[in-house]
Amino acid sequence: MADSEPAMTRFPVPDLEDMPEDIREHIEEETERAGFMPNVMQAFAYRPHQYRAFFDYHDALVDHSPLAREEIEMIIVTVSGANDCLYCVVAHGAMLRIYGEDPHLAEQLATNHRTADISDAHTAMCDVAVKLTESPAEVGESDLERLREHGFSEKEIWDIGSLTALFNLSNRMASFADMRPNEEFYTLGRE
Amino acid sequence: MADSEPAMTRFPVPDLEDMPEDIREHIEEETERAGFMPNVMQAFAYRPHQYRAFFDYHDALVDHSPLAREEIEMIIVTVSGANDCLYCVVAHGAMLRIYGEDPHLAEQLATNHRTADISDAHTAMCDVAVKLTESPAEVGESDLERLREHGFSEKEIWDIGSLTALFNLSNRMASFADMRPNEEFYTLGRE
Amino acid sequence: MADSEPAMTRFPVPDLEDMPEDIREHIEEETERAGFMPNVMQAFAYRPHQYRAFFDYHDALVDHSPLAREEIEMIIVTVSGANDCLYCVVAHGAMLRIYGEDPHLAEQLATNHRTADISDAHTAMCDVAVKLTESPAEVGESDLERLREHGFSEKEIWDIGSLTALFNLSNRMASFADMRPNEEFYTLGRE
Amino acid sequence: MADSEPAMTRFPVPDLEDMPEDIREHIEEETERAGFMPNVMQAFAYRPHQYRAFFDYHDALVDHSPLAREEIEMIIVTVSGANDCLYCVVAHGAMLRIYGEDPHLAEQLATNHRTADISDAHTAMCDVAVKLTESPAEVGESDLERLREHGFSEKEIWDIGSLTALFNLSNRMASFADMRPNEEFYTLGRE
Amino acid sequence: MADSEPAMTRFPVPDLEDMPEDIREHIEEETERAGFMPNVMQAFAYRPHQYRAFFDYHDALVDHSPLAREEIEMIIVTVSGANDCLYCVVAHGAMLRIYGEDPHLAEQLATNHRTADISDAHTAMCDVAVKLTESPAEVGESDLERLREHGFSEKEIWDIGSLTALFNLSNRMASFADMRPNEEFYTLGRE
Amino acid sequence: MADSEPAMTRFPVPDLEDMPEDIREHIEEETERAGFMPNVMQAFAYRPHQYRAFFDYHDALVDHSPLAREEIEMIIVTVSGANDCLYCVVAHGAMLRIYGEDPHLAEQLATNHRTADISDAHTAMCDVAVKLTESPAEVGESDLERLREHGFSEKEIWDIGSLTALFNLSNRMASFADMRPNEEFYTLGRE
Repeated sequence: MADSEPAMTRFPVPDLEDMPEDIREHIEEETERAGFMPNVMQAFAYRPHQYRAFFDYHDALVDHSPLAREEIEMIIVTVSGANDCLYCVVAHGAMLRIYGEDPHLAEQLATNHRTADISDAHTAMCDVAVKLTESPAEVGESDLERLREHGFSEKEIWDIGSLTALFNLSNRMASFADMRPNEEFYTLGRE
Repeated sequence: MADSEPAMTRFPVPDLEDMPEDIREHIEEETERAGFMPNVMQAFAYRPHQYRAFFDYHDALVDHSPLAREEIEMIIVTVSGANDCLYCVVAHGAMLRIYGEDPHLAEQLATNHRTADISDAHTAMCDVAVKLTESPAEVGESDLERLREHGFSEKEIWDIGSLTALFNLSNRMASFADMRPNEEFYTLGRE
Repeated sequence: MADSEPAMTRFPVPDLEDMPEDIREHIEEETERAGFMPNVMQAFAYRPHQYRAFFDYHDALVDHSPLAREEIEMIIVTVSGANDCLYCVVAHGAMLRIYGEDPHLAEQLATNHRTADISDAHTAMCDVAVKLTESPAEVGESDLERLREHGFSEKEIWDIGSLTALFNLSNRMASFADMRPNEEFYTLGRE
Repeated sequence: MADSEPAMTRFPVPDLEDMPEDIREHIEEETERAGFMPNVMQAFAYRPHQYRAFFDYHDALVDHSPLAREEIEMIIVTVSGANDCLYCVVAHGAMLRIYGEDPHLAEQLATNHRTADISDAHTAMCDVAVKLTESPAEVGESDLERLREHGFSEKEIWDIGSLTALFNLSNRMASFADMRPNEEFYTLGRE
Repeated sequence: MADSEPAMTRFPVPDLEDMPEDIREHIEEETERAGFMPNVMQAFAYRPHQYRAFFDYHDALVDHSPLAREEIEMIIVTVSGANDCLYCVVAHGAMLRIYGEDPHLAEQLATNHRTADISDAHTAMCDVAVKLTESPAEVGESDLERLREHGFSEKEIWDIGSLTALFNLSNRMASFADMRPNEEFYTLGRE
Repeated sequence: MADSEPAMTRFPVPDLEDMPEDIREHIEEETERAGFMPNVMQAFAYRPHQYRAFFDYHDALVDHSPLAREEIEMIIVTVSGANDCLYCVVAHGAMLRIYGEDPHLAEQLATNHRTADISDAHTAMCDVAVKLTESPAEVGESDLERLREHGFSEKEIWDIGSLTALFNLSNRMASFADMRPNEEFYTLGRE
């Protein structure tokens, strides 16, 4: 993977200076915070209205969920693994290593959540996320009941569903455009 | 289906008066325009931040796409049929009958886009939408190339991808919560 | 869909006057009864021996089953939806609207029988029909036992199986020949 | 497998003397011809109208097809193998050994038609039969065109489709009722 | 199938005289014992190190297992049927007829183990073998528990897993190289 | 993941001192070389004959293949990712980072080889490995022809097949026994 690898290979990648002001500022803030500019931001900026909608949706979910941030990233990595999405597995694998303070969990969940070192409640959470990913029309009341029995609240259950749904969108965008994970994501949070 | 069927069966449905002001107003506008309150709005209002994010994403795509509105609804109905999502097939089936000025196309696309009465370009468009829905990791450069050969622009191709992605989110929300299509959607645009 | 759309697109469609007398009379009777000539009849007349066998099989099942006619059409629409067969979904969707006196049930069953407004017994009936359609080698004694527990008699259970089997034949004939649903079927029984 | 194994395990098996006269005679003729009573006949006699319809359909196809009898049995064995149907694989395996005068072809086709010792035209024929069995909604004009290029006539192509369709019915009846192949079928035509 | 059919069609088949001494002797012993030279031996001799490893692995399992030889061949035939592998279905079908002293069991298991005339314990054994074949990542503790409940020991359970694993290797080698079953295998053990 | 996590969770893990001498020595050599005892060795020692056969097979392939070691590990990681096998993805991911001198390739191949930064020849190699893993009965002459066109020799092509086959065995053993990757594997070769 060369240094000069573009943010995505299948659509034109806009330069920072050509982006609308609000998007440029949003990217610059994130770049300062993270230390590098995540390629998903540069890629989505190709379609500015969709850029704003995507990151707003992400924040609406992540900033207002009763689920722990670690649980949020567990769902994202599990769903992205089920969808074989390189960008999301690598980028959110880094997030899960950081928020979960666990250097191994991301690879376990991306490969097969059934053999990950997680609690029974989290196995149920990931089972439902994978079922909603792979067979959405077959999810039924009994799946939600199983989550209730493990102590998840109604709002937490809704959010397990909506995080799964959002990353079924996100995985498809990243796969369709062939977004490339930044090198930094591969190593973040490993030590 | 009784008159009193709720907007969704698996989560609490909020009353209009208990919703945040901006959401209530948004719903009232739509209700006036459509003549009835679409159940997806009442359902999403259970989680107000997600309500706003979802409808903003929808508008960001629909209001700023070079694709014709008829093409947008063709993609939505095809994807929703592939995902066996009752709410979206019925509600966007109505939209397609109206915007496409065709009383039969929605049922054709929801059942099997391969035998629908559509152009070769639209068959290619729906083929890619279904492939991105069912096998997102297998979509490749040759799929995009096929769309280019049928005359779709880069931005149109991106939007074929992002509409497919958004309704892979939407179908999963509707299936997870068991959102119920309003009776009105079944008959709109049939005459 | 033009008025002049042929009964099927992949094989020659015979003219009424060139058909064997018994078939022509059978079609004329049905045309008088229904108000139009169903395309499946004109299509099957391409092979007269098979025409007779197909409609005899249909009648042998429908005219002698302890299942209610509404239940028969529920099975047919559910199976045809699982097989993504346009002709059968549209034509038997009309039958179900008429015999079931329900304008919405057909679209619900064709899309996803799991979210249709039906009784638990009918959900079990449709579950078995879909399993026998999609995984015939995996149907077992426990599936039949579930139907017995919902009160279906032995002959009703056999007929759930044989209706499913017949429409797995019918769906494949219609898909193979690309039979086109008559326009009338799209609207019958909606009001 | 005991001598006393019934014709099927999941429904009552009628005695010859309790069957309608025409069915009893039909079975007795076949028993005399074959040297034993095929279990499919005793099983279907549980529902006499369906018995008549099933064997009429079979004869309508087999007695009036431009396909060679060997080709007919090749399609049946291939489809039955794809559907994992014990009765039809074993019973029609015997037919194929006899009509094809080949002791090995049946096992080859039932296991994997792609590695059977058959011509390219017959491979194409079996490819289409398997596609129509496993993915009926995906069969398209190009599949029929491939058969034409191998020299099959329009009526032969229709019959490849209708034999596939009929045994998708037959396989489901045999699997649903758990019809048991007669011992004789296992050995017929092996020497 | 001509007499001169080669041991495999997709790679060069070595002559006996060109093989390393130990392999030639091993083949000659087996040929004397069986009365013919199994094609799998001639095929694998194309890569002598792999020849030795493959037959050693086979013997390590078969010669040291607490499972009965009949059970070993039941697993092999079931797995090979699930993988649609012609060579292994035919060759080990012969083994099962001989070791199981049953002329019909092989065809039953190769077609569909669920409708075979076997005990409940052997159905559980074959269920787990097929699940490990088709969905290896979904096999869990409950599958092993089911085998324990049917009386299988820990070492027997391990061997059910490792026989399944070995023939998932073997089936892929035979399918990849298109190894052809010797004519003798088709008829061995039928009388 | 605790330090005391056992080598596998579903079968008894033997102590080093209870193992046969040759196996103990083999493990001690590897432990000295690697700096830790790979859990797959301790797990397989539960069945000593199979231990010897498994590692001999591995060496027969790896030590005598015209494929580069990096290519060998590429195939292994791709196949293990397709089979969702945690142990093999993590352990051979480390091998690939080391032999391929690339810190990112393993995660790319384990997630989706189609979006990995590899040559067209290696994409073809991985395509065939995945097809032979997921649909072994559908691999045909055209797949081998594609490899030839990319310059692979006959022996290299055979080995692409046999490495795929061996890790279809290995993945099933690791998943069946729930073998746990050593902590060291997660970090080896990352810097």
